[in-house]
Amino acid sequence: MTTHGGASPSLIDVARAAGVSTATAGRALGGYGQVSERTRERVLAAAAELGYRPNGLARSMITGSTHTIGVVVADVANPFFATALSGITDVAQPAGFEVLLANTGGALAAEQRAVSVMSEKRVDGMIVAAAQPGEGTHLKHAMEAGVPVVLIDRQVSGVPEADSITIDNEHAAAEAVAHLLELGHRRIGVITEAGDQLARLRAGTRRRGLFPSAVRLRGYVRALDAAGVEVDEALVAPARYERGSAYDALLSLLDLADPPTAVLCTDNVLASGAYRAAQDRGLRMPEELSLIGFDDEPWTTLVRPELTIVEQPTYDLGARAGRQLLDHIEGERAGRAPQHIQLKAKLVARESTARPVAVR
Amino acid sequence: MTTHGGASPSLIDVARAAGVSTATAGRALGGYGQVSERTRERVLAAAAELGYRPNGLARSMITGSTHTIGVVVADVANPFFATALSGITDVAQPAGFEVLLANTGGALAAEQRAVSVMSEKRVDGMIVAAAQPGEGTHLKHAMEAGVPVVLIDRQVSGVPEADSITIDNEHAAAEAVAHLLELGHRRIGVITEAGDQLARLRAGTRRRGLFPSAVRLRGYVRALDAAGVEVDEALVAPARYERGSAYDALLSLLDLADPPTAVLCTDNVLASGAYRAAQDRGLRMPEELSLIGFDDEPWTTLVRPELTIVEQPTYDLGARAGRQLLDHIEGERAGRAPQHIQLKAKLVARESTARPVAVR
Repeated sequence: MTTHGGASPSLIDVARAAGVSTATAGRALGGYGQVSERTRERVLAAAAELGYRPNGLARSMITGSTHTIGVVVADVANPFFATALSGITDVAQPAGFEVLLANTGGALAAEQRAVSVMSEKRVDGMIVAAAQPGEGTHLKHAMEAGVPVVLIDRQVSGVPEADSITIDNEHAAAEAVAHLLELGHRRIGVITEAGDQLARLRAGTRRRGLFPSAVRLRGYVRALDAAGVEVDEALVAPARYERGSAYDALLSLLDLADPPTAVLCTDNVLASGAYRAAQDRGLRMPEELSLIGFDDEPWTTLVRPELTIVEQPTYDLGARAGRQLLDHIEGERAGRAPQHIQLKAKLVARESTARPVAVR
Repeated sequence: MTTHGGASPSLIDVARAAGVSTATAGRALGGYGQVSERTRERVLAAAAELGYRPNGLARSMITGSTHTIGVVVADVANPFFATALSGITDVAQPAGFEVLLANTGGALAAEQRAVSVMSEKRVDGMIVAAAQPGEGTHLKHAMEAGVPVVLIDRQVSGVPEADSITIDNEHAAAEAVAHLLELGHRRIGVITEAGDQLARLRAGTRRRGLFPSAVRLRGYVRALDAAGVEVDEALVAPARYERGSAYDALLSLLDLADPPTAVLCTDNVLASGAYRAAQDRGLRMPEELSLIGFDDEPWTTLVRPELTIVEQPTYDLGARAGRQLLDHIEGERAGRAPQHIQLKAKLVARESTARPVAVR
């Protein structure tokens, strides 16, 4: 007997109180299979006396649907994922689906475990912001077992049959850099989590299995190439996904013999760290440095100068993923080719970008 | 037969393929009750052929535990709830518990539905930031049905037997006001969602069933009373939980014939709206206005002047609630009196508060 203190009575408890087998108690309570009227009454009386709850699980086991979707993200405390998650719940809940959440901290092992547990709990489908876009074996297994998967924010190698909803990150970053080029900047730096992938990005044609940061770095390179401005590796400053790391990265760019006049930060955490570093260094923005960040967070219009940003449709990203998954679950996408939807980001020019002083 | 497109095969599918009853298939797969060796093999073969997944639900129905906890919050996109949620998942997931999330938008009906659905899905317990602290009947029903409930951020009327983890909001707000009094301010305004409750708060002794905003307003009143400064109702500016509403509230305070020299904003959303209004009005902070907000969000040190804030232990709030609930689920709190834990907030004095000009 594995019931535990404080929990509701289990089927075993009911069966024992009624003096029948667990299987018989299950048949009597679930209303399936054969059971005598007298036994049924005894089981129902025991269930009532013990306070046994009407059981969604039993129904789920029989119908094969739990009306639950799994959502796997790296960090729910990051406003990007929190906002996407609210888009998902706003679509799922009115349709009668609950959301099972896993927060992986960006660790592949935690994601693999979460996908396995959710699969065992028989979620009807999953929305996954993959920890490692290069590794999708566990997602492939889930799909082979009949669990539809919708990828969000990042495509994943090895699961081309999964739908994906992403931002057009290459275009978004290229547009931000083009804005700086138009203002007259030529020394344009970038603070990026994908700093080590520069050589591969410039050579390669790989489209899947990349973090958004790598795709954005490719957009940075593309915009410079298109303008005939040579990419200077010294201006590509690597940073971890932390404010402090971005802070150090901006200072290292400023300490170059020939420092950049403008810097693109490829996400909101990096942008806030870099903004702080520019403040602490006493730099006047935009006169001495133009700065661009990602995501239209409230702080970006409270700071002076207001931050020029690339606005991502984050809530829509979640809502679209939710609708796509519900379509799958309801069988409306059966037999169709997977969809890879890219939503557009938008450059919002504010006060932190202007012509470089030397050009004025 | 209610299986659906794209979903994994159900117990019914397996039973049909094996030519046995659903109950027999369940016994054969679950390893409980009596079933002949020959039948068992036929069912297992059918399950393997159909790709029937090892089923956590079946096990859950038998043991009475789903290793799932429900979390009910008003707005997961609010950094406060997102951070508390990450505290909960960081405790629950390593202990083998998944998190079922409901986002209610602060609507009581949505919360009642979520609690009912979660109860039916047999979560092992729930953590609830109640939409309406005055209404706890649905939570009482869940507890009577054997689902332990831990209240977070706000206590609820009618469920004194539920544990609660809250911030000592009265003390936190009183400390913020005391800081302003010490600096020499006497005209101290407050922007609050509980503006309509001022009279009741000053008269009453009600301790449960109050929003944090109301408890904070009581702290404001207490601190002024303690200093012998009369509470001026004109300085209590009501606002909805929106930046724009707080923006308008600050402007209305500034437009008074005898405006405040300092203003307390009782949460982070209100603080960012008020900060923006002070900027747009061209007020020099802290010389012309001292301002205090809640929550140590990154933007509060990026703005100039940096914002003086009351720092809430938000992550700990979630982590403590998670641990408390797991103790309940594991039976370690059986028969003990409910615990009402209050965590301390901390005033962090920065640049947005100083002596009023008149006193200098």
